[in-house]
Amino acid sequence: MVDQRDSIPDFTAGDGLLPAIAQDAASGKVLMLAYMNAESYAQTLATGRAVYYSRSRGRLWSKGEESGNVQIVRSIYVDCDADTILLQVEQVGGAACHKGYESCFFREVTPSGVRIDSERVFDPDEVYKKNDK
Amino acid sequence: MVDQRDSIPDFTAGDGLLPAIAQDAASGKVLMLAYMNAESYAQTLATGRAVYYSRSRGRLWSKGEESGNVQIVRSIYVDCDADTILLQVEQVGGAACHKGYESCFFREVTPSGVRIDSERVFDPDEVYKKNDK
Repeated sequence: MVDQRDSIPDFTAGDGLLPAIAQDAASGKVLMLAYMNAESYAQTLATGRAVYYSRSRGRLWSKGEESGNVQIVRSIYVDCDADTILLQVEQVGGAACHKGYESCFFREVTPSGVRIDSERVFDPDEVYKKNDK
Repeated sequence: MVDQRDSIPDFTAGDGLLPAIAQDAASGKVLMLAYMNAESYAQTLATGRAVYYSRSRGRLWSKGEESGNVQIVRSIYVDCDADTILLQVEQVGGAACHKGYESCFFREVTPSGVRIDSERVFDPDEVYKKNDK
């Protein structure tokens, strides 16, 4: 046990955003990759739920804030260079992907083309309803 | 089956480098994250072994070229945004990490500090010997 908690992950690397892999803690399935800055990482530690930094929205993004499919963090790992984060999570709702699949990696590249190898867990049009009704 | 092989992954995103996660095809363990450009991805497809782009060295990097610990690619997935790659691999030598561990994610961040939760598979000083003898 080495107390380096303050020095890793190293958010001074690059532009302050580190890739964070979310893996299902029970099945080992890789669910998604998103990015974290220091603030989102701190909120993840504080809340026990995955909080990312959305590059497209330019703000913190509490995973599941719209869909309800939050990620309960079971364990956190950092890699040897301290510039990648691995979260082992319990994926509430059974689907991490905004397209309705369990994993964002639902497309396999094969020699004969791209194959979708799983079924949708939810209908994105239903989950991400417009709020202007 | 949809033939989109030429359009995904999308290397036009960002600076032409996409994160690529390597996962042990048998155990599901997440081994490492590295980066690919279009050329390294093409070489990966052509050779069936993981070829990354080393940001620090500024050149293609055939995983295992020094250590012999190559990664035999069993399957390739792309995520919903086509900007992250997931390789399921057979890790020759049993260790992906240049520090001698099976996985680069050998450090767990816990409330009481950082914990190393595995043993080294090899001694890095032995494997990465200087060639000036």
